[in-house]
Amino acid sequence: MTDIENVLDRARFKDDGLLPAIIQAEGTGEVLMLGYMDREALRRTLTEGRVTYWSRSRQEYWRKGDTSGHVQYVRAAALDCDGDTLLVTVEQVGAACHTGDRTCFDADRLDVVVGPFDSPPARSGSQFDSPAARSGSQFDSPAARSGSQA
Amino acid sequence: MTDIENVLDRARFKDDGLLPAIIQAEGTGEVLMLGYMDREALRRTLTEGRVTYWSRSRQEYWRKGDTSGHVQYVRAAALDCDGDTLLVTVEQVGAACHTGDRTCFDADRLDVVVGPFDSPPARSGSQFDSPAARSGSQFDSPAARSGSQA
Repeated sequence: MTDIENVLDRARFKDDGLLPAIIQAEGTGEVLMLGYMDREALRRTLTEGRVTYWSRSRQEYWRKGDTSGHVQYVRAAALDCDGDTLLVTVEQVGAACHTGDRTCFDADRLDVVVGPFDSPPARSGSQFDSPAARSGSQFDSPAARSGSQA
Repeated sequence: MTDIENVLDRARFKDDGLLPAIIQAEGTGEVLMLGYMDREALRRTLTEGRVTYWSRSRQEYWRKGDTSGHVQYVRAAALDCDGDTLLVTVEQVGAACHTGDRTCFDADRLDVVVGPFDSPPARSGSQFDSPAARSGSQFDSPAARSGSQA
């Protein structure tokens, strides 16, 4: 089995056959967008130097920039601890967002309540304990038990 | 309607009621992990100063750090252009990953073919044209037509 087949086999696509891919700009670290890849789109992305998605709305492959010129050149990629999310570092030509914004997260920044409001949580007896904490688990994440990230 | 209700109504949860949330470290820009939020987890995240997820594997709310101490304090948040992905900037206490790694993408960096291999695509006649390009669309993304990001 080739290396690429091994990687593709390791990726845990969801029931719909897709893997979410976070796209981050090299250098600036900007998170540009989230797209989705099926096995073939992932193969192309890892082997062709350009990011290819599976378009859910059009049900076809979509190689970023082919018509807009806003190409994403692949610089690095990593699977997460569960193999169910991809992070791709790219050189982004022009705008990543179809709206013309540099990133897809530029236009709708939300008002948030900024933490902290509380002290770091205690290991036991914290008023902030989750159900997991109350049940005595030492683990923060369900993944720690099941091997599958929440 | 309060501001928070307006935001929650704007978020486009998928059929399973969940929204993917990219978590990025303030300052360093590291992409730490991807989690999922339902409407209530999003409400808590935006209003409590701490990141709360919906755990798919345990089917319960999971406020990051309650048991591990690896708290995520909310610094900023944004919805993407389609409202179907959230980006949260956080102050990460300790490791974001349940494996003990700083990020969930540290352990499985992939071999990739690094672009570019080709010149920037032409607007017409490019050998790299996608089906969309061949049909004469000036738009890169199906979202440009339908208003919904691929």
